[in-house]
Amino acid sequence: MPAPRSLPVSPDRLVLGFDLVATFVFGLEGASAAVNANLDVFGALVLGFVTALGGGIIRDLLIGDTPPAAFRDQHYMITALVGALVATAIFAPISHVPRWVLTVLDAGGLSLFAVSGATKALEFGANDLTAMICGIITAVGGGAIRDVLLNVVPQVLRTSVYASAALFGTVVMLIGIRAGQPRGRMMCIGGVACLALRLVAAWQHWNLPHAESL
Amino acid sequence: MPAPRSLPVSPDRLVLGFDLVATFVFGLEGASAAVNANLDVFGALVLGFVTALGGGIIRDLLIGDTPPAAFRDQHYMITALVGALVATAIFAPISHVPRWVLTVLDAGGLSLFAVSGATKALEFGANDLTAMICGIITAVGGGAIRDVLLNVVPQVLRTSVYASAALFGTVVMLIGIRAGQPRGRMMCIGGVACLALRLVAAWQHWNLPHAESL
Amino acid sequence: MPAPRSLPVSPDRLVLGFDLVATFVFGLEGASAAVNANLDVFGALVLGFVTALGGGIIRDLLIGDTPPAAFRDQHYMITALVGALVATAIFAPISHVPRWVLTVLDAGGLSLFAVSGATKALEFGANDLTAMICGIITAVGGGAIRDVLLNVVPQVLRTSVYASAALFGTVVMLIGIRAGQPRGRMMCIGGVACLALRLVAAWQHWNLPHAESL
Repeated sequence: MPAPRSLPVSPDRLVLGFDLVATFVFGLEGASAAVNANLDVFGALVLGFVTALGGGIIRDLLIGDTPPAAFRDQHYMITALVGALVATAIFAPISHVPRWVLTVLDAGGLSLFAVSGATKALEFGANDLTAMICGIITAVGGGAIRDVLLNVVPQVLRTSVYASAALFGTVVMLIGIRAGQPRGRMMCIGGVACLALRLVAAWQHWNLPHAESL
Repeated sequence: MPAPRSLPVSPDRLVLGFDLVATFVFGLEGASAAVNANLDVFGALVLGFVTALGGGIIRDLLIGDTPPAAFRDQHYMITALVGALVATAIFAPISHVPRWVLTVLDAGGLSLFAVSGATKALEFGANDLTAMICGIITAVGGGAIRDVLLNVVPQVLRTSVYASAALFGTVVMLIGIRAGQPRGRMMCIGGVACLALRLVAAWQHWNLPHAESL
Repeated sequence: MPAPRSLPVSPDRLVLGFDLVATFVFGLEGASAAVNANLDVFGALVLGFVTALGGGIIRDLLIGDTPPAAFRDQHYMITALVGALVATAIFAPISHVPRWVLTVLDAGGLSLFAVSGATKALEFGANDLTAMICGIITAVGGGAIRDVLLNVVPQVLRTSVYASAALFGTVVMLIGIRAGQPRGRMMCIGGVACLALRLVAAWQHWNLPHAESL
């Protein structure tokens, strides 16, 4: 039996790639949220910036990769700024960004960051539990900072099947990896699993039980 | 005169023990607050988790113990999750957790984290002022993150004799240590001092003067 | 032609000096905001403390200078506490601190931290983009934490020509440095540029365009 065929890129480069696409998407989405909240142009850039980079920075501080990648590798900051600039340039004229656009962008960033965060934690020697937590933190951290700054309860607490979708994606990925699948392939499968669950849940208005109704 | 009898455990292990009990208590208390705030089950777990681990993580980042203990030693995460799960399982059916239960749990976590935070800072070479500040940060940090996420002004700013009780406990501990008492014994005495002051203040509705009434 | 005359102090010591003056000013200003928000005396000290030290601590964690200067060098904590104590002692009797006093104090701290933050990042090997971001983070970080704790949208998002004034000051400084001017002199010029822009903007109620009106 041949060894399972891996993707033609190393997990390291996949983490960077996933991180950068998620950074762009969250930069776009954070600045769009600022447009909806009626902030000025510079405030939109600031909000896009922290939404895009916040999750990864917290992850890097927690796994001990300091200074965080976002402060060592200029691609992160430039990607975040381009995302935020695109949002202010494209979405500003239409004045209000449709809710479903933000939901889809957010789900994309969530999925990419969940698997890249968990994979990076594994590479720094984390066990599976810590890797799952790191995946969730990377995925929801930037959005949590965005919502705290906008003075609303963060989406991670308000929205059902949000952090749990990130958890689902990382669990799918980790099960595959422990079963011997190549890490790069499982990053893609885990990301798709998270994205699918999050979008279907948003579309069907799935709710987890509230604690008091258990 | 014999040397003062120490507790039969090293300060190192006492810090871990105090940290873990406080982590459990704050996990329980953070998830209970989520039940009261009508979050869903996964949101309650997330809130219990950050309440339990937030203060210690900030302390460890600030004293340079990276990655933070909560990310190196799996006991922390598991303890926080068990605390949060117990809260959702026990408190969910009664739907609203009585206020005094939360106050007592909170005071317990506050006291344990105040002395463990200050002691860990001492072990990392901090002077007394920095140790006091680290004790306060460890004690109030998790709750501050909890309240910020729930979008309310943190208890540390709203509640009189809260951060000041943590300060009192660390001062009692440090005075004893500087007077030659064993560190482990003073951790217990300082913790009891903080707990007693906090509970009496909550019971008697003690208030510090407001700044403008000085 | 003689070499440009530098200030008689090294950039290192200028960073410390600027940091400490800004720490004092933000300690004063954070505690004053607490007086206005009707917090008690200890809450005012806590708020002054985090406003004064928050920006520099985040900067130091991000550039990898851990433990942060505020936890290694006792001057920071003492300066922050003195600033907060002065505010509660002076401003408490007059019960409400005039808005323009807070604006001027805030602009001073903003300017000093913007140039000290960018300069310290340069000394840790950051490129110009990262140095600019670090300058902004140092300048607005403490105030953002203050406002998040007071449960309002941070000034950096609400107020036009705030983060952008910090950016302006660091850009002026970096252009001068790249043109061969001594670092110490450009710190002063950049700081004055930021302060002037911020104060004129506050006085004239300048506004950046809101995103939707572009």
